[in-house]
Amino acid sequence: MRHYQRFVTISTAGKSLAKITSKIQAIVAESGIETGLCTLFLRHTSASLLIQENADPDVLRDLENFFAKLVPEDSQRYIHSAEGPDDMPAHIRTALTHSSEQIPISQGRLVLGTWQGIYVWEHRQRSHTRELVVHITGD
Amino acid sequence: MRHYQRFVTISTAGKSLAKITSKIQAIVAESGIETGLCTLFLRHTSASLLIQENADPDVLRDLENFFAKLVPEDSQRYIHSAEGPDDMPAHIRTALTHSSEQIPISQGRLVLGTWQGIYVWEHRQRSHTRELVVHITGD
Amino acid sequence: MRHYQRFVTISTAGKSLAKITSKIQAIVAESGIETGLCTLFLRHTSASLLIQENADPDVLRDLENFFAKLVPEDSQRYIHSAEGPDDMPAHIRTALTHSSEQIPISQGRLVLGTWQGIYVWEHRQRSHTRELVVHITGD
Repeated sequence: MRHYQRFVTISTAGKSLAKITSKIQAIVAESGIETGLCTLFLRHTSASLLIQENADPDVLRDLENFFAKLVPEDSQRYIHSAEGPDDMPAHIRTALTHSSEQIPISQGRLVLGTWQGIYVWEHRQRSHTRELVVHITGD
Repeated sequence: MRHYQRFVTISTAGKSLAKITSKIQAIVAESGIETGLCTLFLRHTSASLLIQENADPDVLRDLENFFAKLVPEDSQRYIHSAEGPDDMPAHIRTALTHSSEQIPISQGRLVLGTWQGIYVWEHRQRSHTRELVVHITGD
Repeated sequence: MRHYQRFVTISTAGKSLAKITSKIQAIVAESGIETGLCTLFLRHTSASLLIQENADPDVLRDLENFFAKLVPEDSQRYIHSAEGPDDMPAHIRTALTHSSEQIPISQGRLVLGTWQGIYVWEHRQRSHTRELVVHITGD
């Protein structure tokens, strides 16, 4: 068994989900690992990782709408408001989703289901460059 | 160090949690791995994994009730409604919980706490057959 | 590749986040592993793990306030109430956050972003001693 680690950057648009499935699949191919485990780790507290429906873009809009309503940008609700009205909601949305995801690898490919895509979810209003660590183990 | 990977199917009943603890423990035993890590990955976007209380079944009913209220089946709220009123809520409930879980292994057993059980949570109204990937590493 | 596993206890204060970043970093150093993956697993269903903002303590208060409002301690809402009004909310808060976290290791250190800290979130009213399993693989 061996491992393969890569740091990559992801450009996000504000308050939306950026699909990274093919980028991650390419890194898995590059690693040459046939059977193993791929761990993704996002180095931020106001953006997160999600595995979600990859077919209908309306699902992504509904996810964004649901979270926008669940965690409103209303500075009266939060003590931490110095970094803007979208900052504390972004932290809460990150807490409710995931900083890391794990996906096994079989026959050189991620074992994602037919409808699963991998996303970086930007929770701030403005676009950002986000740092993702990809750690693959196996043989 | 070596790994052991198995694809298994789980039969679920609609909108409820199916306990899979002993099934996973049996696969760990089968692997012969004494110290290591067990990763579970569910290949779906409308069912998810959860580690929760394994003693009082009322906890599972309260979890289901809470999520049913938090993410209502009300098609007016969602753009994505073509696959039925329970589909978009199922995606959101999956986002709020987990596609993967990791549990270390010690002395040939999952290190679950006394009250922890492993569950597949079906978020659709109808029963389904769900595919789970179990990936174990260690020695 | 090899692994290193440690069981540690964490003392928590009621309904608050206990920072464990330096404790985990010390275990990583102790392991001597330079490139790898660190998995944390909490053996409880009424406390959870979270990676969050490590700078402004107001963020932690806002997180606690948000979750207290989202999952109220109102025994009329829950069937499971025998263990006190804070027990079922604690299970739900655990479901909404994480039993495990994974963080890659590079150059002997966790690859946490500048603003990321690791926390055990106590969801019960009273302080507890919580058991955490740290499993590190790499070389």
